[in-house]
Formats: sequence, structure tokens, C-alpha cells
Amino acid sequence: MSLVVIGTVAFDAIETPFGKTDKIVGGSASYAGLSASYLYDKVKIVAVVGDDFHQTEIDDFNAHGINTEGLQIKKGEKSFFWAGKYHNDMNTRDTLVTDLNVLADFDPIIPDSYQDCEYLMLGNLTPQVQQTVIKRLTKRPKLIVMDTMNFWMNIALDDLLDTLKMVDVLTINDEEARQLSGEYSLVKAAAKILTMGPKYLVIKKGEHGALLFDKDSVFATPALPLAEVFDPTGAGDTFAGGFIGYLAKVGSINFNNMKNALIYGSALASFCVEKFGPERIKNLTQEEITERVQQFVKLSKFEL
Amino acid sequence: MSLVVIGTVAFDAIETPFGKTDKIVGGSASYAGLSASYLYDKVKIVAVVGDDFHQTEIDDFNAHGINTEGLQIKKGEKSFFWAGKYHNDMNTRDTLVTDLNVLADFDPIIPDSYQDCEYLMLGNLTPQVQQTVIKRLTKRPKLIVMDTMNFWMNIALDDLLDTLKMVDVLTINDEEARQLSGEYSLVKAAAKILTMGPKYLVIKKGEHGALLFDKDSVFATPALPLAEVFDPTGAGDTFAGGFIGYLAKVGSINFNNMKNALIYGSALASFCVEKFGPERIKNLTQEEITERVQQFVKLSKFEL
Repeated sequence: MSLVVIGTVAFDAIETPFGKTDKIVGGSASYAGLSASYLYDKVKIVAVVGDDFHQTEIDDFNAHGINTEGLQIKKGEKSFFWAGKYHNDMNTRDTLVTDLNVLADFDPIIPDSYQDCEYLMLGNLTPQVQQTVIKRLTKRPKLIVMDTMNFWMNIALDDLLDTLKMVDVLTINDEEARQLSGEYSLVKAAAKILTMGPKYLVIKKGEHGALLFDKDSVFATPALPLAEVFDPTGAGDTFAGGFIGYLAKVGSINFNNMKNALIYGSALASFCVEKFGPERIKNLTQEEITERVQQFVKLSKFEL
Repeated sequence: MSLVVIGTVAFDAIETPFGKTDKIVGGSASYAGLSASYLYDKVKIVAVVGDDFHQTEIDDFNAHGINTEGLQIKKGEKSFFWAGKYHNDMNTRDTLVTDLNVLADFDPIIPDSYQDCEYLMLGNLTPQVQQTVIKRLTKRPKLIVMDTMNFWMNIALDDLLDTLKMVDVLTINDEEARQLSGEYSLVKAAAKILTMGPKYLVIKKGEHGALLFDKDSVFATPALPLAEVFDPTGAGDTFAGGFIGYLAKVGSINFNNMKNALIYGSALASFCVEKFGPERIKNLTQEEITERVQQFVKLSKFEL
């Protein structure tokens, strides 16, 4: 039994109104894997890096209990690199550099030891690669969560729609839900997307929280209002990792557990934005997480 | 003991992607008064109209148990008129016409029978007129809630800041909170605004719900995700009316009751947008309101 996270492990260079970083570790599998590792102890990642990737960073994953057997290291090649600059409102950003490097021909290898996968997190990545991972697992996982973004809707929509048919949960943001469905109303967008494959849809709204839909119900959680948002990079991946990590921990899939998973995902994401890159999400204690989750309870609870 | 609502009673002509109306009843006191009337039976309004205002509309207010003794009717003058057109996303609109008419020299008269005011709702209006109403009440109400908008921040900021010192609760939207405080983060904005007079701040975020702040706590409620938003006109006023109406009903002011007031305000606002103008908010049953509030409970409740 394990939670397998597939996605990117990469370098990011980030500029926000608060400062800028040189190349630091980033990527959807890094954030989602680290986030999930606080909730579940059998997290395994599938990704590819070049030999410019530091062993100390891999040691860091391992120190969090993350199995990196599925992390391919390509000799003589470079890791995926993204550079971006956030605008003053922190909600929009410009991409300055996207060097695919090793990602250009990523062929995901699933180690035999990963075939016990019960929970599969398809982190943001080419839909075709996400699909390949599903196909290479000999047994269909109990739960498949797929994260994606508008970029893939623009350049690989057919692959994305094919992959969507194979998953249980899709996590996207509000604009992406509108783009994918062609519906402005999120209620109508959700109804449409739930006919495309997933049984559950999570709509991430950043500072406005998140929505969870199945065909009968809807649940909404606010985001924790924060005095400072230092760097939003990776918050969506961290959310997804916390979401599936919580479900793996409790071990049963139903709407009530999904609601709590939304809270855990939101709580972990609220840490992520407090520092540059994955710095904060690398250094959390269980006490901090429990306390943050309690803040969410206090934030949303009322007696009527 | 009564709940006095001051604001505009007016005509609106509204165009949305779903259609357009001729002159229909609008105004902050109309929406807030009607909304509050479902929760509290002693609602009294202070406003001014011209003699173009129909008696049937006044009868409508009275039929909702609303006392209109404080509604001045100016002979030979015209009612305030606003015309606006909503864009496709329904979140932004253009103002096409603003004819102040009777509002230009509105001198609010407080009938003696209104001096039992315990709850005062200062609906969206010139801050100077809002302030005059407070001064003309012989006894300071138990609770004063002030609604306002960016327009007054632009043209009457000093009056607005003066009035703010005299109130308990301010309700504004997120952009207005940012404008008033000069802070982008709503947490910082709230901290600053809570030094300007009010003990409580409600930030209305439309489709993203609402936030309630006092100096120690924050509470967030989502908005009900809706398949159709037909016409957002008056939703903020309806929210404010439901908010203070609930507090008048329960009769004691504390953070927990404010949280529930936020839910009731949100529930009533969610009806308002379902039809043009105040049509829906004029025709509600207690059963519909109870059911809608239960939808909010279901929407936000989780067990952790």
C-alpha cells in the first residue's frame, strides 16, 4: 500500500514583490510529495531530473520518508527549469523561462516496488505522461487524483480529455473549470466536468478557498486570510498533496472524508505561500499542521 | 424597540446578459428593508422619493410590515434614478444614468415613532446623511451597521471617516476594504479599518462569500454556488438587511451571533440575484429562507 506521486521535480527561479531567488527546487511532484509526506508515510515519487540536480535535495525527500526509486536521473542532461515573476497582486504572473530539458521526452518508469500503489496523485504534467503512469500500474489504484492546468487544455486537450476518463478526482482552478467546460457558472461547469470522467471535482480558488463537487453535493472551504503571501508558487500542488495524503491516511473514500481532505490541503497550502519555494513546506511539524487545521475549523465553524 | 433602515428608495433600470427592465423599484433601503423584514417585525425606513413613486410600492413595503412614516414624498420632484448595464461576467457593470433628483438635498426626517430605534442600518448613501441620522436619534442605538461604497471614498472620504467613528459594524467589499485601508492583504486591511471606529468589519466578496473580522478573530462564509446569477443589483444591500435583521431578531451582539448573521445575510442575498431587481426578495416564504440557510450549513459543515 502506497501513495504514488507523479509530476515534475525541477528548478524554479521566482521573483515576487518581496524578493527573488536563484534556482531553487520546485516542481509539482516536489510540492505534492512533501505535502503528502506529513500525512502519510508511504509516499513514492515518479519524476525525472538531470544530473544538475543535487543529491542533497534527494536526501531531503528521503528524510521526509519519500521513496525516490522512481526518480530518474538523466546523465548529461539538465533538469526542467521555470522562471517566473509575480505581479503586485500575487494572483497573476509572467513566465520568463520554460526550459523543458529532461521533460521533453520523459518516459515514466514505475519501479516494481511502486506496484502496491493504492493512491495515485497525477501532479501537473503532460496528460499523456499522466496516462502512461496509470497504464503501467498493474492494478488500478483505489483512488486517482489528477491535477492539471490551462496550459494543457490549450496544447493537449484531447490527451487531457482521454486521461480525465480514467481518474476519480480532478483538481483545477476556477478559470480552468470555466475553460474546460465552456460554462461561466461554476455549478454548471462542475456538472459538465463530472460527465467527463471524474466522480469528484475540486475547484481551487486561491485566496477565495476551494469547492468540492460530486453529482449530488457541493462543499466549500474558505482559504485562511493571510497577512502576507510571500510566494504562491507550488500552493496548488501542495494543496493536491495534502488532499490525497489525508485520504490515504484515513483510507476510505467518501464525500465526508473528501471535505476534510479539502481542509488539510488548504491548511498545507497556507503554509506553502509563507516562504519562497518549498522552504516552508520542507520544515513543518505535526503540531503546526494540527494547529493550522484548527484555525480552519475556527474560521468556518458556526452553530445554527 | 425597532430596526431603522436609512438609505435610498429609488428607480433602477437594469440590463444584464439575461434581459433588461424598465424603471423598477430599487435602492439600498428598499433591498435592506425588505430583507430585514423577513427576520424582524419592527422595520422602519427613512428615505426620500418624488411623487413619481407609486403608492402600490409603498403598500408593498407596508405589506411586509415595514413602517414607512419616515419615507418623505417630495411633491413635484422625481425619485432617484440609476441605470446600469452588467457585463457578461456579472461582476462588473457600467453606470449609464445617475439622476440624483430628490436625493440631491435629502434631509432625513426621523419621526418620533422611530426614536425607539435599537438597531440602525445605515444603507449605502451620502456619509453626511448617514451621520445626520445618527445625530437625530435621541438615544444611541444598541448597534449601528454602516454600508458604503467606493463612490463615497472617492468624493466624500472625510465625511465617511467621520461617520465611521460613530458605527459598530462596517460592511464593504474587498476592493473597497483595500481602497479604504491602502492595504492589499485583507487581514492587514481589516486591522487598519478596525482602528477607524467600527468594532466589526464585514468584507463582502460576492460569489466568493464574506469575511467577518473583529480585533481578535476572523470568520469566513462561502457564497452558495449558483447555476444562474440573473441580476446582482441589490445583493449587497440585501445582505446587510439580513445581517442586521438577524441580530435584531436574536437581540444580543457577540461574535457568534454575528457569524450566524453573516449566514442569514448571505442566504437572503443568494435569493436576491435569482430574479431582476427586488422581485425575488419581495416574494419569499419563511420556509424558503430556512431551507436556504440549511443549504449554507450543508455547504460549509465538516467534522474534524
